[in-house]
Amino acid sequence: MNEGKIRVGIVGLGLMGGSLGLALKESGICSAIIGDDLNQVHRRQALALGLVDECLDMNGILECDVIFLCTPVNAIVEIIKNIKSLKPNQMVIDFGGVKSEIIKAIPKKLRKNFLSLHPMCGTENFGPKAAFRDLYKNQIMIFVDINDSGKTQVELAREICIKLGMNIVKMDSKSHDTHTAFISHMPHILSYALANSVLEQENPQDIVAIAGGGFKSMSRISKSSGTMWSAIAKQNKNEILKAIKAFQKELEIATKLIQKDDFSSLKEWMDSANRLREII
Amino acid sequence: MNEGKIRVGIVGLGLMGGSLGLALKESGICSAIIGDDLNQVHRRQALALGLVDECLDMNGILECDVIFLCTPVNAIVEIIKNIKSLKPNQMVIDFGGVKSEIIKAIPKKLRKNFLSLHPMCGTENFGPKAAFRDLYKNQIMIFVDINDSGKTQVELAREICIKLGMNIVKMDSKSHDTHTAFISHMPHILSYALANSVLEQENPQDIVAIAGGGFKSMSRISKSSGTMWSAIAKQNKNEILKAIKAFQKELEIATKLIQKDDFSSLKEWMDSANRLREII
Repeated sequence: MNEGKIRVGIVGLGLMGGSLGLALKESGICSAIIGDDLNQVHRRQALALGLVDECLDMNGILECDVIFLCTPVNAIVEIIKNIKSLKPNQMVIDFGGVKSEIIKAIPKKLRKNFLSLHPMCGTENFGPKAAFRDLYKNQIMIFVDINDSGKTQVELAREICIKLGMNIVKMDSKSHDTHTAFISHMPHILSYALANSVLEQENPQDIVAIAGGGFKSMSRISKSSGTMWSAIAKQNKNEILKAIKAFQKELEIATKLIQKDDFSSLKEWMDSANRLREII
Repeated sequence: MNEGKIRVGIVGLGLMGGSLGLALKESGICSAIIGDDLNQVHRRQALALGLVDECLDMNGILECDVIFLCTPVNAIVEIIKNIKSLKPNQMVIDFGGVKSEIIKAIPKKLRKNFLSLHPMCGTENFGPKAAFRDLYKNQIMIFVDINDSGKTQVELAREICIKLGMNIVKMDSKSHDTHTAFISHMPHILSYALANSVLEQENPQDIVAIAGGGFKSMSRISKSSGTMWSAIAKQNKNEILKAIKAFQKELEIATKLIQKDDFSSLKEWMDSANRLREII
């Protein structure tokens, strides 16, 4: 990697794209960081916050050596469909949270120029103001279907991720979409449902006034962007429905045990969940 | 309050009781902190960790000025039922997470000596080793049905809580049990169900290997003690079932919207959960 020589483009200047800009700036590996965002307010905020060096439109972005797509997944698919040509060593990296549709949208003749990554980090906050430098540090980056990407591209992406302090995991897109439905997408739906169930009560303020750490943990991600998460739900519909079904089955077990006063079996069911301690 | 003059007894030397011992030691308001726990290993650990000054049995505990009951709620009820007499200024404080049954168990003639408090803090860890000094600091303490407790007792409890750095909220036991079902008990059931649904998959290790902050938040409290939480479920059965029902209704709304591809309504439903930002 030629330090300081890479011109980077970032499309989508929210939490993910903005934090990437900050981290790349600090890494010293870029000659320039160019941003783009459909939202003009976000462009101005990103510049004011120093997340990127300059904002240009897609034509300017497409001049960059490495282009990161950090928008909601529906926009990633649209942007990819509109990319008609790239220089041999150029690379487009998407940060989408669902992979099958995104990878399907990549033009076959440009397949080697594309790399599909998924950073397993984030917060419930969104927009340029949510960005912070260390978002990616010590977090997992999933490299998806990398055998279809060019070797030069994969190697450069790996170097960038290491510079960001990330841990790399490889996965095929099918496993990715199945696993993330369980580990990320379905839990977000649960958190939204929990928040809405409390907000629908007569006196949500009184209930929430006494919230301790448990509720704060469980409701935190219900504050996440509906734009981003509804797009993910659309692209990973079937896997998410399966994960919700598996969750409902467990909730039904607990409900039935409570209904029939079988609290020793309920305790066993809870103890069984404690096995999570062994793997996380 | 006569600083350094209060002899305190703590029954149950886990996360709550142990952390209380540490915090009270530091406060300088106690002449001695006596512990008791049915589990002999916990007694030894509590002494080794310096959570209490000494361990005695219930007869020794009942000699204390202020007695804290920090066991699971079923044990709290049993202990209270066995208290036949107290000196006029003695006080028994329970830390139970459900209040109706506990308060019902208090002998009428000793009602003024009892005070029902609920600290809205905790972690997923349990046992004496989980105890830490600042567990209570800046957290909420709910004072339940305080009009039935003696004024001297309430005043002393208030002073102790302020020494611990806690914020006091008052509530009647009925509201307490309804609100905590939503804010604490039902969310714990959800977290256990989430953990079990993942653990029931073919390859839970592979799924959990890529967990980001969302799953960590949502699954954290599934690591909590099944002994403690199954006892809470038993004592607050009806309120918890109502809260689960309200949650399931919301989850059903989301599931149906996903099934019929109505992702713009799903986005609205998610945006609606974002209102939680305004109150927490």
